[in-house]
Formats: sequence, C-alpha cells, structure tokens
Amino acid sequence: MSLGEFDRIDRFFAPLSRGAEGAFGLTDDAALLPVAADGAAWVVTVDALVAGVHFLPNDPADLVARKALRVNLSDLAAMGAVPYGYTLALALPPDLVEPEAWLDGFARGLRLDQDIYGIHLLGGDSVSTPGPVTLSVTAFGTVARERALRRSGARPGDDLWVSGTIGDSAIGLQVLAGADGPCVDPDATFLADRYRLPRPRVALGPALVGIATAALDVSDGLVQDAGHIARRSGVGVRIELARVPLSDSASRRIVAASSLHRDILTGGDDYELLFTAPVAQRSSVADAAAATGDTVTRIGRIEAGEGVEVLDADGRAVEGLARGGWSHF
Amino acid sequence: MSLGEFDRIDRFFAPLSRGAEGAFGLTDDAALLPVAADGAAWVVTVDALVAGVHFLPNDPADLVARKALRVNLSDLAAMGAVPYGYTLALALPPDLVEPEAWLDGFARGLRLDQDIYGIHLLGGDSVSTPGPVTLSVTAFGTVARERALRRSGARPGDDLWVSGTIGDSAIGLQVLAGADGPCVDPDATFLADRYRLPRPRVALGPALVGIATAALDVSDGLVQDAGHIARRSGVGVRIELARVPLSDSASRRIVAASSLHRDILTGGDDYELLFTAPVAQRSSVADAAAATGDTVTRIGRIEAGEGVEVLDADGRAVEGLARGGWSHF
Repeated sequence: MSLGEFDRIDRFFAPLSRGAEGAFGLTDDAALLPVAADGAAWVVTVDALVAGVHFLPNDPADLVARKALRVNLSDLAAMGAVPYGYTLALALPPDLVEPEAWLDGFARGLRLDQDIYGIHLLGGDSVSTPGPVTLSVTAFGTVARERALRRSGARPGDDLWVSGTIGDSAIGLQVLAGADGPCVDPDATFLADRYRLPRPRVALGPALVGIATAALDVSDGLVQDAGHIARRSGVGVRIELARVPLSDSASRRIVAASSLHRDILTGGDDYELLFTAPVAQRSSVADAAAATGDTVTRIGRIEAGEGVEVLDADGRAVEGLARGGWSHF
Repeated sequence: MSLGEFDRIDRFFAPLSRGAEGAFGLTDDAALLPVAADGAAWVVTVDALVAGVHFLPNDPADLVARKALRVNLSDLAAMGAVPYGYTLALALPPDLVEPEAWLDGFARGLRLDQDIYGIHLLGGDSVSTPGPVTLSVTAFGTVARERALRRSGARPGDDLWVSGTIGDSAIGLQVLAGADGPCVDPDATFLADRYRLPRPRVALGPALVGIATAALDVSDGLVQDAGHIARRSGVGVRIELARVPLSDSASRRIVAASSLHRDILTGGDDYELLFTAPVAQRSSVADAAAATGDTVTRIGRIEAGEGVEVLDADGRAVEGLARGGWSHF
C-alpha cells in the first residue's frame, strides 16, 4: 500500500461507508454486519465485471459502478432479500487515463445507487492490475429464514411470470455494437440504456416471498434461465412467445427485423425476475406488483416433465433457440 | 454463461460448497449465512489478488488459491473472528495454458485449506478476462458483538506484541526474485515458502478477544502497520528493533547482509498479528498463545503522542524506514 492508496480510500471510498456503523469508516481489517432481525437470515451474492467483457471499455465510470451494484442487487431480489450493503474489490490499470476523474465518477455512481437503494459500502480492496478494469461486488441483504426464493420450488400447474420487458438489453447491446455516428433515435437510446443500466426489481423480489414458488433473475437469457428453473425444480417450462412482454422500442425494432424476436429470448442481461406461482396466487402476484410499482406478465406455465418449450402464436414449438452449446431444453 | 461454465461450477466448485447448507450447492442466485450464535456478529473482509502483482504468474494454482484464502483469514483473525466461509470471484484469461489442470490445482488448494481451517465455499462468479488471472475472496467469520478487535483501542502504557517471526516473507520475495537456478539452500526454501503461503493466526486472534486492546495483521510492513494502530488509537508506538522476532533463516541472511535488518521492518506480507495489551494482561497473552500453539513476543510499548519510533539496541532512533511515500511516523 502506498500513501496514494490511503488517500484514495479516504477521499473516494470511506465517505460511502458512512451510515453503516460496522464498516468503521473502512479503517479496520474487516467490517461487522448488524444482527439480522428475528427470524431473518443474511443473504450473500457475488458478481465480477471485466472491462471489454461485461461492460464497454469506454463506458462512463459512474455507469460501470452502478451496473456492478445492480447486477448484484438483482441476485438479492431473486432470493427475495432486502438489500443492505456491499463490499468492493477494484483492480485498476496504472495507465488509466485521468484516474482521479475516473474514480470520482465511479464513486459518484456508487453514491447515486446507494441513495436509490438504501445501501452502504462495507469494505473493499483496491489493487493495481496490468489488465483491464476489473471489479467484484459482494452484496448483502436479509430475508425471512426458510422463506428465501429458490430455483427449486416450481410445481406442475404453476404459472410462469416475468417482470418488466424482455430483450431490451440484448437489442441495446446490438445498437451499441453497431452504432455508427451520433445516435438520435429515441428507441436506440432507450435500448442502449437498458443494456448499460439494469433496473433490479429490489422491491418486487421481497414482495413475492410467500407467494412465488421459484424465482431467479434473467441474466443469461429468458430461455436459458427458464431452463435453470426446469432443472432445479425437476419440471418442464412452457413459454408462449406471444405473451413475452416487449417494450415499445423493442417491438418497433422487431417489426423492422423479425429475427430479433428469437434473439431476445436468449439475449440475457435483462435483470428481470422470472418466477412461478400457483394459479390460486394470481391476484396476490398482481397485488404485490401493484404495490411495488412493477409490471408483471404471465408468460407460460409449469408442467410435469423437463426442459423448456417455447410455443409461437399458432402453438408450434419454436426451434433453434440453443445458444453457446446450451442444450438443456 | 456457456455450458463450459456450468460444467466448471459442477466439477470444481460445487463440491467445495458441501457442508455449508445455505450455499445450496451453488445452484441459486445467492447463499444464506446461518444465524450467528447469540451475541455474535458476522465479520466480513475482502482481498483481491492479481497475477504478477500479488503472486508470481508461474506460482502453482493450489498455492494461489491458498494464499487468496489465507490473506482473508488473516484479516478475520485480526478482528478476533472465527472463520466460517467465503465467496470467490475468479477471472481467468482464455489463453490460460491447460485451464483444466489449473482449475484442478486451484480447487485442490481451496479444498486443502477448507479442511485445515474448517471453512466452505458459499458462492462465486467465474468470468473471462483479457488480462491476468485475478481473484477476489470475501471471507466471513463470527465474533462476539462489541468485542471485535479494532485498531483504535491501544492506550499509553500498553505492551506491543507480535506473533511468530517478522521479515521472512520480505526476504523470501527477494529470494524468489533473485533465484538463479535450482534452489538447494534450506533457508531460501523456508523463506520463499513464507512468502508464498501465509500462516494466518486464526486461533490466536479469537483467543485474544477480551485481552488485546488493539490488533491488526501485518500485511503492509511492521512499521507501516504499527502506524495504523498509532493513527487510529491516537497514540505513539515505540518498537525495540532487537526484540523483533526473527526466524533462524532470516537471522542467518541478516548476518550475511545487515541492511536486511531494516528491510524486514517495512517488507510486509508477514500476516502475523500485531497487537497491544495492558501490562496486567501479560500472563493472559502468554496463556492464550500457549493454548493456541502460537509464539508471541513483546516488541515495544504504547506511549502518549503519535507516530512510530524504532529504537536500536543502543536506544537510538532508527531513521529512514519510510517507504513508498508513507511518512506517518
């Protein structure tokens, strides 16, 4: 550690720990978590992001920070957990252009989302790397013990639900990859933003505890993640393509390029909640979503069997949705 | 995620989660921590390691894994916490030579230390990087609430203690950096091993709860870390150079190159516990160390004032120990 590192902690990171008593202002070797409420348990999740792999190398630092937090908050939401805080490991290359400006933007992004989600930095490690900017966030939340949402609870007859809209991020990444010149198309702007800045369903997840039978967040792609529920619950998942909710922007893009309608099913990075619930809970699901201000859509059902089947509007199975060697449907 | 990643998790990592019920075999979005015992709190720490920065690129994968765990366990020990488990974020380059053999060695190293320290893998994320092997471990332990060892509790009149021996790792790194050909010197082998594989004082730390007034683990260097206690406790630290415990191997090296005697004070990577305790607790400290099988040595005392002063055998201040711009003593 050089003096530079202590300065860096004092200036950019220690202020982000204020409000979390057990973080000790990042002055000690470790942090203390507060005692969870009676009957509650701590939930822990970790996600790593690498420049050039999980975000674009020229993405603004504040967006990188927020994306790192939000993909973790999405995992907590999928377990039904209320977020509390996070630790951060940050590896920065010494040849970073304007490192202070980068750190300033990064810390600003963390602060913005800390305020939005009511979380705090609990501890961290900042190191040098000869490689790209790399960060790893471990996020903490609490959920009623024995009631955490799992992938394994779906039962035949359950409805399959998804929050928000699917495919925006996948199309957004295509927009960003193919961007040729200044972008003035409001659809393109919306879709690119959906890729860059996930909206984790942090309120909906906890609201579904006791209602949903299984849940996860859609990060690998709708079909792949439905496959996780199928595999872990030992059931089959049937998705009706026409019911999959699309944003207006995505719908307009799909009219222009119909092949997109398949891409969005496997594109990933949606960070929406995919969950199952008994038919008798339909009004409870609707009430939970109304209470948290989220939209939810029933897109299919759980059946005895295995794997994932996607049906088009005519009831025919949609083929060829495998990606990256994933064949479990 | 590709199929390769699921295979990798199933084969190398899921087995490491067995024994930690709340890890769910790494099948879900997050893990649950068990309820801490009455009056206990969860302690969290994070450390990142980068190939070429924190370990040598050709270090065996099992040693890399064990070092990553151990530097975190050392942080827990410094807080007086008993280790429970950890999460892991691992970024691997696609051009890793023999990736399966590397992962096999890496998982073997984790398993070895899991068995030694009674800990489990709770969750993880495995990603690709165009950069060097990068890993980040977040470790969890428990300590009696309100009794965690901090850096801020040292009081004038307290003794200053250190566990084990100081400087082996710093000399070991020099040995490794200057190694020319096969190494047959047993001192060199011992010292290099001390650099490669820290021995965190996981039993001694918890045994010092209620006895030590302040503690940390020596990672930056004895003098720098003593400076942390001085700064956080608002006291001065006086270290007697002749009392600083040396291994036989380090002593022989210092006879051959007397300048080393200064280097070891600032070299770092010792992962020994540096702590303070009232004079009235000398026998309690000795008893605690005897009970855990660790050696401890009284190397100085706490005084009113600020900063760190190192005195030679004649009582003269040793000058010129600042390193890397660190000037807080």
